[in-house]
Amino acid sequence: MARLKGFAKLTPINYALEQFFKSLKLEPLDSEAIPLKDGLDRIVSTDIRASVDVPNFNRSAVDGYAIRAEDAFGASATNPIILEVVGKIKIGLESTLSLERGEAIETTTGAQLPAGADAVVMMEHTRKIDDKHLEINSSTPPWKNVSRKGEDVTKNESVICRGTKLKPQHLGMVAALGCNEINVFRKPRVAVISTGSELVELGSKLEPGKIVDINRIILSNMVIEAGGKPIDLGIVRDDPLKIQDALKKGLKEADLVITSGGTSVGEMDLIPEAVNSLGNPGIIFHGISMRPGMPTGLANLNGKPVILLSGYPVAAIMGFETFAKPLILRMLYSPEEPAAVIKAVLTRRVVSSPGFRQFVRVLVKRTNKKYLAEPVYSAGSGILSSMIKANGLLVIPEDREGYDEGEEIEVTLFGQVE
Amino acid sequence: MARLKGFAKLTPINYALEQFFKSLKLEPLDSEAIPLKDGLDRIVSTDIRASVDVPNFNRSAVDGYAIRAEDAFGASATNPIILEVVGKIKIGLESTLSLERGEAIETTTGAQLPAGADAVVMMEHTRKIDDKHLEINSSTPPWKNVSRKGEDVTKNESVICRGTKLKPQHLGMVAALGCNEINVFRKPRVAVISTGSELVELGSKLEPGKIVDINRIILSNMVIEAGGKPIDLGIVRDDPLKIQDALKKGLKEADLVITSGGTSVGEMDLIPEAVNSLGNPGIIFHGISMRPGMPTGLANLNGKPVILLSGYPVAAIMGFETFAKPLILRMLYSPEEPAAVIKAVLTRRVVSSPGFRQFVRVLVKRTNKKYLAEPVYSAGSGILSSMIKANGLLVIPEDREGYDEGEEIEVTLFGQVE
Repeated sequence: MARLKGFAKLTPINYALEQFFKSLKLEPLDSEAIPLKDGLDRIVSTDIRASVDVPNFNRSAVDGYAIRAEDAFGASATNPIILEVVGKIKIGLESTLSLERGEAIETTTGAQLPAGADAVVMMEHTRKIDDKHLEINSSTPPWKNVSRKGEDVTKNESVICRGTKLKPQHLGMVAALGCNEINVFRKPRVAVISTGSELVELGSKLEPGKIVDINRIILSNMVIEAGGKPIDLGIVRDDPLKIQDALKKGLKEADLVITSGGTSVGEMDLIPEAVNSLGNPGIIFHGISMRPGMPTGLANLNGKPVILLSGYPVAAIMGFETFAKPLILRMLYSPEEPAAVIKAVLTRRVVSSPGFRQFVRVLVKRTNKKYLAEPVYSAGSGILSSMIKANGLLVIPEDREGYDEGEEIEVTLFGQVE
Repeated sequence: MARLKGFAKLTPINYALEQFFKSLKLEPLDSEAIPLKDGLDRIVSTDIRASVDVPNFNRSAVDGYAIRAEDAFGASATNPIILEVVGKIKIGLESTLSLERGEAIETTTGAQLPAGADAVVMMEHTRKIDDKHLEINSSTPPWKNVSRKGEDVTKNESVICRGTKLKPQHLGMVAALGCNEINVFRKPRVAVISTGSELVELGSKLEPGKIVDINRIILSNMVIEAGGKPIDLGIVRDDPLKIQDALKKGLKEADLVITSGGTSVGEMDLIPEAVNSLGNPGIIFHGISMRPGMPTGLANLNGKPVILLSGYPVAAIMGFETFAKPLILRMLYSPEEPAAVIKAVLTRRVVSSPGFRQFVRVLVKRTNKKYLAEPVYSAGSGILSSMIKANGLLVIPEDREGYDEGEEIEVTLFGQVE
């Protein structure tokens, strides 16, 4: 039977997530206008419609001569057609030239098509006879070699949806529409609190009995990766009043409060009581049927979410991935980015307790034709090096007792495969 | 036959990449020490060895009593063993207590193990008889419930290799070793130049004949995504001297210069000549058998790389992905991050010219049990919206003439699948 470490009851991940989100009545965050150049990876907060056609005028797509297509009908190498050259267009200027029947105007890629023209014949399909006359040796249907007004985007067309994560191509598209600002959701503020009297700050001299607080730098950077803004509330000793103070500060300044450590069911596990003292309904779930991450707790304090993570780094990472990241994405109305999932053959049997979702770190290697996934031996959720030796995660769902050696499984990669 | 747009000869991608890199004699960039907290996504420049054991002392992994395992040998519910309680350990302090045979010391998760102890019996497996005496009702083998010194990382062990991209877990690991600085490769500086007299700055009023320069914001952000630092050298008119000046500035300030526009073989395509005037051997390849991106050029100016990209945004993006990104990663000694690749069924036939590598934008949708990939109609490499309507890329290799409707293909996702 699963060792419950003092938890009366464990809740399955999916149920906990659903009820937690439901209890919070989540709504997307406020919107803010930012310079487009700062937009990478931000989440668009309003649907974007085109206020203009892109391109905004008919453009030549090649170097050549703007013509009326009907004038070149039937032209070929053996039956060239002669047109009169009446001018040359300068790129980047409004075209004031216009074209009558039998005429051609020299043009370059990207230049505005002159009035009256409806096609461009490529330079390669022409021959200059003299200063004024041009031979065309290829038929050119209407709108051939023309980037037509609105061919990329038509005015009023919906171009980018709310919730889109801005990639370079989106920034380019918004720029093409003539904007240099964009409305995005403000970043969710996530307070990160580490608890434990044994913890010392990054870079402190290591003294006996003390360990460096590594969860804060890990979780703060996971917040950044998820699209949030971490608020560092430091290390808090195992003291109920100090813990309450830090939580109050987090609740005031942040949209989500994350604690790590002190969330089990021992004498020094002071977080749950402190959380429950600060709002309603308080802790909704404490103890999740996942491994690592069993002591994870989920609380709602007067509508504001608090997530209690284990002090063990791997458990904290898995708890964050499972609960905090989806919550941050939900606040941002943002989709998950597509994950790199591959099929691999398991090199060793892995077992899991039924009813638990188990996260197994694996090292995926490429062989001739297939991938092999080797479980990374790890004595427990305190072994951070398992997350560094591994490059992927195998999730054993609740209804499985594990996977056999040689079984083909799906691995979500978080590092490069060699 | 493939239309060469005036290129005498096209070079296949793989050959061009290999020869280009070989000609540049690439070496990793200089190293710089940065605060660990700024390390996310930077590339480690020196192998990291553990200067200490992690953890640095034996720690209790549970709340309970530190004991000598031999004292509890054979203990069970029906045969409890009684030990004398001689103290309690405070977490976070150096343990000055020590343990003799027949003794137990109360401890909490994370606290240093007292001298003489070699196991911890969980609170749940004990019963306090009186202030001084404890009943143990479970056998506890040596080192049970102890996080042993060095169990995560052993002193002198190699922990993180040169070329690793720092993820939250790596930052945590370096923190655990007692460091708060880290050596990373400095970011490659990449000068981005847009050329074309028709271009206007982001946010300018749109006038007839003018278009917004969108390539600079796209390419600068692709530089950031690849791990480089963009240097914005602005828009340069179609003027040979101005183009030379901008190139000179780029060559002086940057590790790589990227231009877009003016790289075809027309009257206004002034970049190749300007590039060749500024160093040796100059342009190595001009005209690549890829679509979009055929007019891409690769130059080596006295050892410094210059990449000439098309002015058409989709062609510029594909040229960047194919040549500039691998070059930036190589400078950083960095692996590609694992891509999200899925198998999907093609909904429509796509054709490609043999000898060309073709990049087809597809929209992948999920149906009941499989993924469908629909090619996004696009009239050409100027249609940026094709990169926004699509969420994945299908690469048709040089030895294929396309794929049939219904064929299963591999798609690299760059956006979320609905």
